[in-house]
Amino acid sequence: MSDDSEVFQALRSVSTATITTILLKKGLRNVWMRGVAPLKPGQPRQVGRAFTLRFIPAREDLATPAAWSSPVSTRAAVEAMPPGCIVVVDAMGNTDAGIFGDILCERIARRGVLALVTDGAIRDLDGVNASSLPVWARGVAAPPSIAGLTFVGWDTPVACGGVAIFPNDLIVADNDGAVVIPDALIPDVLAEAQDQEDLEAWIVGEVEKGVALPGLYPPSAETLARYKKDKESRAL
Amino acid sequence: MSDDSEVFQALRSVSTATITTILLKKGLRNVWMRGVAPLKPGQPRQVGRAFTLRFIPAREDLATPAAWSSPVSTRAAVEAMPPGCIVVVDAMGNTDAGIFGDILCERIARRGVLALVTDGAIRDLDGVNASSLPVWARGVAAPPSIAGLTFVGWDTPVACGGVAIFPNDLIVADNDGAVVIPDALIPDVLAEAQDQEDLEAWIVGEVEKGVALPGLYPPSAETLARYKKDKESRAL
Amino acid sequence: MSDDSEVFQALRSVSTATITTILLKKGLRNVWMRGVAPLKPGQPRQVGRAFTLRFIPAREDLATPAAWSSPVSTRAAVEAMPPGCIVVVDAMGNTDAGIFGDILCERIARRGVLALVTDGAIRDLDGVNASSLPVWARGVAAPPSIAGLTFVGWDTPVACGGVAIFPNDLIVADNDGAVVIPDALIPDVLAEAQDQEDLEAWIVGEVEKGVALPGLYPPSAETLARYKKDKESRAL
Amino acid sequence: MSDDSEVFQALRSVSTATITTILLKKGLRNVWMRGVAPLKPGQPRQVGRAFTLRFIPAREDLATPAAWSSPVSTRAAVEAMPPGCIVVVDAMGNTDAGIFGDILCERIARRGVLALVTDGAIRDLDGVNASSLPVWARGVAAPPSIAGLTFVGWDTPVACGGVAIFPNDLIVADNDGAVVIPDALIPDVLAEAQDQEDLEAWIVGEVEKGVALPGLYPPSAETLARYKKDKESRAL
Amino acid sequence: MSDDSEVFQALRSVSTATITTILLKKGLRNVWMRGVAPLKPGQPRQVGRAFTLRFIPAREDLATPAAWSSPVSTRAAVEAMPPGCIVVVDAMGNTDAGIFGDILCERIARRGVLALVTDGAIRDLDGVNASSLPVWARGVAAPPSIAGLTFVGWDTPVACGGVAIFPNDLIVADNDGAVVIPDALIPDVLAEAQDQEDLEAWIVGEVEKGVALPGLYPPSAETLARYKKDKESRAL
Amino acid sequence: MSDDSEVFQALRSVSTATITTILLKKGLRNVWMRGVAPLKPGQPRQVGRAFTLRFIPAREDLATPAAWSSPVSTRAAVEAMPPGCIVVVDAMGNTDAGIFGDILCERIARRGVLALVTDGAIRDLDGVNASSLPVWARGVAAPPSIAGLTFVGWDTPVACGGVAIFPNDLIVADNDGAVVIPDALIPDVLAEAQDQEDLEAWIVGEVEKGVALPGLYPPSAETLARYKKDKESRAL
Repeated sequence: MSDDSEVFQALRSVSTATITTILLKKGLRNVWMRGVAPLKPGQPRQVGRAFTLRFIPAREDLATPAAWSSPVSTRAAVEAMPPGCIVVVDAMGNTDAGIFGDILCERIARRGVLALVTDGAIRDLDGVNASSLPVWARGVAAPPSIAGLTFVGWDTPVACGGVAIFPNDLIVADNDGAVVIPDALIPDVLAEAQDQEDLEAWIVGEVEKGVALPGLYPPSAETLARYKKDKESRAL
Repeated sequence: MSDDSEVFQALRSVSTATITTILLKKGLRNVWMRGVAPLKPGQPRQVGRAFTLRFIPAREDLATPAAWSSPVSTRAAVEAMPPGCIVVVDAMGNTDAGIFGDILCERIARRGVLALVTDGAIRDLDGVNASSLPVWARGVAAPPSIAGLTFVGWDTPVACGGVAIFPNDLIVADNDGAVVIPDALIPDVLAEAQDQEDLEAWIVGEVEKGVALPGLYPPSAETLARYKKDKESRAL
Repeated sequence: MSDDSEVFQALRSVSTATITTILLKKGLRNVWMRGVAPLKPGQPRQVGRAFTLRFIPAREDLATPAAWSSPVSTRAAVEAMPPGCIVVVDAMGNTDAGIFGDILCERIARRGVLALVTDGAIRDLDGVNASSLPVWARGVAAPPSIAGLTFVGWDTPVACGGVAIFPNDLIVADNDGAVVIPDALIPDVLAEAQDQEDLEAWIVGEVEKGVALPGLYPPSAETLARYKKDKESRAL
Repeated sequence: MSDDSEVFQALRSVSTATITTILLKKGLRNVWMRGVAPLKPGQPRQVGRAFTLRFIPAREDLATPAAWSSPVSTRAAVEAMPPGCIVVVDAMGNTDAGIFGDILCERIARRGVLALVTDGAIRDLDGVNASSLPVWARGVAAPPSIAGLTFVGWDTPVACGGVAIFPNDLIVADNDGAVVIPDALIPDVLAEAQDQEDLEAWIVGEVEKGVALPGLYPPSAETLARYKKDKESRAL
Repeated sequence: MSDDSEVFQALRSVSTATITTILLKKGLRNVWMRGVAPLKPGQPRQVGRAFTLRFIPAREDLATPAAWSSPVSTRAAVEAMPPGCIVVVDAMGNTDAGIFGDILCERIARRGVLALVTDGAIRDLDGVNASSLPVWARGVAAPPSIAGLTFVGWDTPVACGGVAIFPNDLIVADNDGAVVIPDALIPDVLAEAQDQEDLEAWIVGEVEKGVALPGLYPPSAETLARYKKDKESRAL
Repeated sequence: MSDDSEVFQALRSVSTATITTILLKKGLRNVWMRGVAPLKPGQPRQVGRAFTLRFIPAREDLATPAAWSSPVSTRAAVEAMPPGCIVVVDAMGNTDAGIFGDILCERIARRGVLALVTDGAIRDLDGVNASSLPVWARGVAAPPSIAGLTFVGWDTPVACGGVAIFPNDLIVADNDGAVVIPDALIPDVLAEAQDQEDLEAWIVGEVEKGVALPGLYPPSAETLARYKKDKESRAL
């Protein structure tokens, strides 16, 4: 996990916007979970490994309050969540039922989970906001999950917001939403991310000085040379 | 109406999340109006009887400014609204035209209406926010209702957010949205609601102490016994 | 442009709700851009001439980072934007890719552009919020435009939120969204708008005094007479 | 009804395409019911007065098999249908439940109804096809209406495919779908329709001879003169 | 399997419309797969046990032609299909990529599979039509599955057309679409289905004789007595 | 054009399914126009260069019958269509208005156009079917284009069914829909297509003999060797 903690540390200063740009250069266009937004504005960026949960549609013979105490229940899934993970819940985009309310969110936070990411809705908005769990979701709905969904398990590949998520994929979530970084591409992201962030910050500064875009963004060879010189001089 | 005022009083402390759970146990899964959200965060919970209005699509020969002074107009409907009701407007989910603006919302508030609930949009957002009428809606749109809708009457069964609403059905709206309680089920809701809220609050407390979910939520017989004991001791 | 600046000045006190009502009376029902909302609450109303940009779907052989430095690029378009315009971007309603981030928004603001209006999404939300450019959009997305879109040019007719926008059409945007006023109809809007706003403000006042709607709104001949008398007496 | 039968006779040779063109010239753009298609290809054109039915969403306490024998039932509505009418059913666009199956369609045909038009689905496709009732609908679904819908009445204004339909509005349905002609506009349609059909047939003939479109369609004054001459010579 | 073959035999004469009516009386409203239609009109009804396959969205690092020969491939799934089953494929409703073409459909037919049911699309329409495999699907699309989907496994719970399907659930598909019968409810369906079909056929006959619906459908006690008498007399 | 005619000849025996597979191997996933289906079953495959047309939404001041004789009209566009092209019309996916009826389709056919491809609808279905123009579209609608659309020009980049189409791109349409082949990739497609079709036909034959998929499809080295031997022996 020591590797991971360094990776996490490095990625905490990299925006999801920058990550999607780097992954696109590697040929990955489908890594951002559609419609999955921070529940509260200004939540700090979260970085962690995915722990997945999966729902399918409700069938009245299966999705009953009794299901809550079955061995394949969301309650059992919660107790299986490892500390430091980001929980990713495939609710099939259903925003007519809340997958979790205040009690489960509070317990998930207690287990040391960093964040909840879902393409469904949460319920008990006031209670969830009172818990310390940062949530990225598609909405808020009063009905319980069993009004529209049946829980079928955890730790399997899932779809979330139109993106494939596998257990242990790396997840980053901030104010622009939530993205996945496949394991094999983490080194690429790390290698380019900090440079990209530094360069873009410098470009913003140039724009603020009134420099026009052509040649500046994307940077020409001359601009890059100027950037490197500035960077070196500031590093002194 | 004395019955009602006690019912209203009791329900004002019951969340729509709890109400949907109780109704689902009675076999009702379709009571929460989809996409109908509070216009302002933190509006207090509202409880009242439904007064219904109904729109159908605009037809250019019917949906004209002249329609505003016809006897079957939204203006006439407003003057028919009884004090203490919750107005439920079937706009067929149309979010491209605002059903009411500042003038009508202000007048609706003056008539003693508790809240406006619609699966359409409102317009004149600044003016509506300045009025004292709490609104649950699907959005905000500049165009007048006649740009997309024709008003056809009030006090009839309607659809709102995919839910059937009959005149005088009981409506509860809070930060999780708006739900209907059919008359025949009000006693069931009242009987279980307060207990459920108390139990859930106690469970949240247990979770905050670090208790795991299995056996706690949903509560085992042992947990329920512990809850009752706690409740009694606190009641002393 | 002197004409324009007077028009702009006059329209800055007219709401988009009022404008859509006036245009509907002239037979125009489709002037409000669907789903295009202010990025931040409370942005002041903006009035300006449309400068249009147009995207089509991404094709992997065209939508690449290399495209950013092609002569038909968003960068070139930015440098062609005249000061005082409102930029209207046809993103085909795609909310899965951000058309612009912090760097471009900052540069657009520097060029003296009044506002950005799009039926797509923006990215780098924190950075865009830090820029001084007011934005009306459909959402926020981390991926770059090329993840879903190909830029094809500027200063041509476009669709935005289901509305036809031609270069130099007049755009007004406020908390109810963004509308277009075709050139030929500007005199009609100007002639009626201020009167309409004054009348509605007076009607709100009457409603606040407890006057019922029939005869008041829409105003009967008698009400109009009363309004005119009040207006004159106040003008003294 | 003698007026009507002449109107019907005249309209049976006028396509819905021609009718929508004429109504658009009168300012009506929203008269064609979206997504409402002939169930079988090649059904002959039908012309009749609308008899409306209306559904709202299902609520489990109301939409039960018991509802089928309530006084406000689809069965009672069927027995109220006048011969020669076209039944227009507002199913709110729901294609997940079949509003009628073979038994009701057979009975509706027996009552002398000309056609069934709905923005919902029918069920028992084989049986409905075996009945003699021509159907325009959005689809086919196995579940009964009560799986998704509650019947609330007949002979009231309804929405069908996004179009407002009032009882006794004139309906025309053919292979391009179903349209409404408001009463007040029937004379306009009759006056222009036959001429338009004749002119368009003549233009098709010209196109088949290889004549180019400019000046031909829409016809210039010269083309119209040529058409009139041809028409007169053929009338000899 | 002897039980099953009798069940299958009995259900082959029961329509999906009748099955959904019976299941609704038992409280199950969500058993019909939305939008899943026969690829060819007039395909005979199919009855069999579900063998499930599951896709999630494509990720460019996973959904590649190389995936076709991975051990978790659709090819391996095909070879695991037992004869006599109905294959149910969860394509998440994606109609932009064809899950199977002519080669796989031909092989699936060769393995003795009765039918393919999916909420996605098939490709190579001409080739699939040339195979002997009856297909129920949402559409036809040229691109291969990997253009939009990643295959993740078989024989697990899936969603298909908004309905929960578990391995070995009983599936019935006909011209009204495809439905699931949960195992525990098979006896109920069998007990009522034939009676219901007989009664409805008799009612259709009565309607054809001109009998009105009230009392006939749903049948009154008197009607039921008349039906029984008719049935007995014909049985002689 | 001699190159083209050979290319066209070669591609006429290659299915759109095969083309999408080859393009996907080159990294292009978005080349199939969503929802664009043959109007009549069994239309022969068409291959040609794209001639593009573009609509934006209707605005009542612009989309009028008068527009039909403006210089930027669909009529003028028709007369500019070169023989042998395939017309691709960007109707923004609008299926509520028919872009062309019988007269225009007949004239388009007369001009030697091979096919019409659109993500919109056509009108006058009977007349269009009577013309000799093969059509790929999203549907059929009675209203004229101006009921929902404004024509803005031809021979520019367009979106059709979510795919970017540039003038002169190569288009292939068959029973699986319509695809684009970017110019630069035509040699790749030609090089692989015939081989792929031959191989797949041979594989179908093997499957018909009862060969299982593993090793057969995708073919192992051994299978490929066997295929080549068969091919050579048959070529004798």
